[in-house]
Amino acid sequence: MITHDFPDGELRLFGIIGDPVSQVRVPFPATQRLRSAGANAALVPLHVPARVLASTFASLRHIANLDGLVVTVPHKIAMRDLMDVVTPRAELVGAVNLARRDPDGRWRGDIVDGVGFAHGLAASGFDPSGKEALVIGAGGVGSAIAVELGRAGAVVRIFDTAAGRASALVDRLLAAGIDAVLERRIEAGDAALVVNATPLGMLSTDPLPMDPCLLDPSVLVAEVVMKPAMTPFLRAAADRGCPVQPGEAVLLHQLDAMVDFLLGRTDVE
Amino acid sequence: MITHDFPDGELRLFGIIGDPVSQVRVPFPATQRLRSAGANAALVPLHVPARVLASTFASLRHIANLDGLVVTVPHKIAMRDLMDVVTPRAELVGAVNLARRDPDGRWRGDIVDGVGFAHGLAASGFDPSGKEALVIGAGGVGSAIAVELGRAGAVVRIFDTAAGRASALVDRLLAAGIDAVLERRIEAGDAALVVNATPLGMLSTDPLPMDPCLLDPSVLVAEVVMKPAMTPFLRAAADRGCPVQPGEAVLLHQLDAMVDFLLGRTDVE
Repeated sequence: MITHDFPDGELRLFGIIGDPVSQVRVPFPATQRLRSAGANAALVPLHVPARVLASTFASLRHIANLDGLVVTVPHKIAMRDLMDVVTPRAELVGAVNLARRDPDGRWRGDIVDGVGFAHGLAASGFDPSGKEALVIGAGGVGSAIAVELGRAGAVVRIFDTAAGRASALVDRLLAAGIDAVLERRIEAGDAALVVNATPLGMLSTDPLPMDPCLLDPSVLVAEVVMKPAMTPFLRAAADRGCPVQPGEAVLLHQLDAMVDFLLGRTDVE
Repeated sequence: MITHDFPDGELRLFGIIGDPVSQVRVPFPATQRLRSAGANAALVPLHVPARVLASTFASLRHIANLDGLVVTVPHKIAMRDLMDVVTPRAELVGAVNLARRDPDGRWRGDIVDGVGFAHGLAASGFDPSGKEALVIGAGGVGSAIAVELGRAGAVVRIFDTAAGRASALVDRLLAAGIDAVLERRIEAGDAALVVNATPLGMLSTDPLPMDPCLLDPSVLVAEVVMKPAMTPFLRAAADRGCPVQPGEAVLLHQLDAMVDFLLGRTDVE
């Protein structure tokens, strides 16, 4: 099935759409996994400006050998509305980071950012069930993480400087039977897990997402920022003795779920 | 400039558009040459149905890291009309097999099928200048070959079962100062070169494009059909002692011109 000539004319194509897109790290490992899985396929970057997202997707879906897309910033929420059908968890998150053509021609969206995060926790032996988790940031990734933590049985406490966004997420979680609490200010409280799901830490001039002095050394502190690998927040937490999970885990631990979904090997979850 | 991770997020993308596209052989050698030329780039197949060509190209041109396209059947003529500007030879041929984004944002079309063919002749030491060449078939590839032979100084004799198409091409060639003759029936005459530029030979049930008994052993006989490499017509010509040029030459000898154009390293010709 895989030829030695890569790429060849029979290549099945997947794209990662973002604006910008040059920073994405997923094309290489995802392509490796697609090919290891026996697919003559590749994942390539597609820099799609936000203003033409809808018309571009309308065209991309007609390209017969383009079978799916990975979706990154700033398209995750807009792409949700361009899908013909989405998984329940994408519906709950209100965003997608994956899209694929189903055998019937419909495009299906899913989001596995939270899955990658939760797999990362599992790999470190952390089980969120019955524990409190503080999620700082209720954007796309924060929502995906909150949903997955909630589905794993955690009590999810959500803070966002945009209180309306946090409160809308809490409402959706509660409606789905997930134990969620809106936080008006950041307090560690009884949280066993604290997640920075904001972009704070990407720039060296960013403030910390929360005061590390509030962290008990027993708290697992996790990041979604991937560059730098050790953000100032993670470093401060580690200095206090906290175990930490770098942002890279969200990507690394979602690759299998991503490839399975893109190849149509997973059903709705 | 080239990273070891291929593909990565900084990949510059080129597509080959066709319908179908799985049979194309250019993605691998073109990608190798793009990368050898120092570009972090790849050429991937894009199966674009003819009915959505215009709207799809309108979207593809907005993808910021997609810098150019190779164009194959059945899009070569339609794409000419979607270009902002074309080279003089593409204007003369009435078709493009290459398209690229110029620095000013305009899309420029060119056609190098004839260039590949002529380079193939040169590689075999055949100089068409002052000689007669019989081109059978006045479609996209036949037109491109006729134009290039004419520019190299040949007297180009053109036959097509669709006489109107052949006559329109002859008119365009004459208007461009190229010595061209419309053939009402196939005769070798004084031709030093005979080119099959029809699809005849792709299927084992196809008739021969011309009676090989008309061929003097001194005539160079060339093909554009690539599969099989030795068509029944080439085999019959070789049996008569004629030197032959397989269809593959059109592809192999245009790769350098293709890569130069796609990377913006050639100007209008």
